[in-house]
Amino acid sequence: MVLVHHLRVGRSVFAVWLLEELGIDYELKIYERNAQGRAPEELKQAHPLGKSPVIETEGFTLSESGAITTYLLDKYDTENKLGPAGGTAAKAQWLQWLHYSEASAFAPILLKLLLMREQQPHPPIVSAFSTAEVALQLNYIQNYLADKPFLMGDALKAPDFGMCFILQLAQKLGELEAYPSLVAYLERNLASPGFQRAMEKTGG
Amino acid sequence: MVLVHHLRVGRSVFAVWLLEELGIDYELKIYERNAQGRAPEELKQAHPLGKSPVIETEGFTLSESGAITTYLLDKYDTENKLGPAGGTAAKAQWLQWLHYSEASAFAPILLKLLLMREQQPHPPIVSAFSTAEVALQLNYIQNYLADKPFLMGDALKAPDFGMCFILQLAQKLGELEAYPSLVAYLERNLASPGFQRAMEKTGG
Repeated sequence: MVLVHHLRVGRSVFAVWLLEELGIDYELKIYERNAQGRAPEELKQAHPLGKSPVIETEGFTLSESGAITTYLLDKYDTENKLGPAGGTAAKAQWLQWLHYSEASAFAPILLKLLLMREQQPHPPIVSAFSTAEVALQLNYIQNYLADKPFLMGDALKAPDFGMCFILQLAQKLGELEAYPSLVAYLERNLASPGFQRAMEKTGG
Repeated sequence: MVLVHHLRVGRSVFAVWLLEELGIDYELKIYERNAQGRAPEELKQAHPLGKSPVIETEGFTLSESGAITTYLLDKYDTENKLGPAGGTAAKAQWLQWLHYSEASAFAPILLKLLLMREQQPHPPIVSAFSTAEVALQLNYIQNYLADKPFLMGDALKAPDFGMCFILQLAQKLGELEAYPSLVAYLERNLASPGFQRAMEKTGG
């Protein structure tokens, strides 16, 4: 059994989607954001950072989406449904894109999100950095994805979960309009039965 | 043979340190930042994001520090010098901290770094977020590290490389003064022969 500490609305639904795809038996503990859009203090009882997703299983607590993904695949993906294809180069690519959506892709998007909430004039350095970096990242993703249905090719794999979170954030920020192939990729993934089940069970 | 595209000064020296610890034969291609502190356009020929570290080996190119680390350990760390200790819980913790320094830890520090360069008054939401988040992250690291010499306990393991990058940034920002145990951890690691060799070969 896996217990998921799930904060609505955010990255955690993509961890629940992963659980759905793997067919793992799990329980949800759902937390709501406060009026400022931040996680409630209660979530710090699950994990000191007070962020989500966090899972509890086998007597330990685990944070960081990429670590949760790797742990769950090691234990439950016995048929290698979501892991890398065979060969060293394919595994390296899979690893790169698994890390990418938490690492290089995230900070520029977060910056844009924070600036959008700002009432005062945007500071030029932070503003220019986030604008240039978001465009750089979205072009990079678009060029890599090209006309493939999923990041790794013809089938949904673990790196798609985190990528969908990044692209969903970009879409909410109005940054995705110039990238129709990324919109199509996102819509295709979010319409999938597994993601829809995750949405129904969590409310987002 | 591993070719490292190394941008001075930044995260890449910690990948070189990893290569030194594993005793891998590698070559360096060194890039210098421009007057604005950004990577030169030339680095985009190595990888479309134009960031570093990037490695070339076995006919492919690989970015993202965590992916590079996992690839190098899978291939070269045959004695499990830097990988997790035995047992599921130990491996999960190792994974969590490997991902952490690229994911949760990085964005708040980057925000602080950008704000520091800003001449105009700092916007209140971005400023409050980065201040609170940096303190949250540093307290979290300090509490986890406690009196252990390394993140995972008595020996240097892969998660220490990324952590040292985060703490080095925090120190440059003047954020580490209130955390003497983190200063001691950072100094102990950066004084190690492996890191010193990486510094000598790269210039930082």
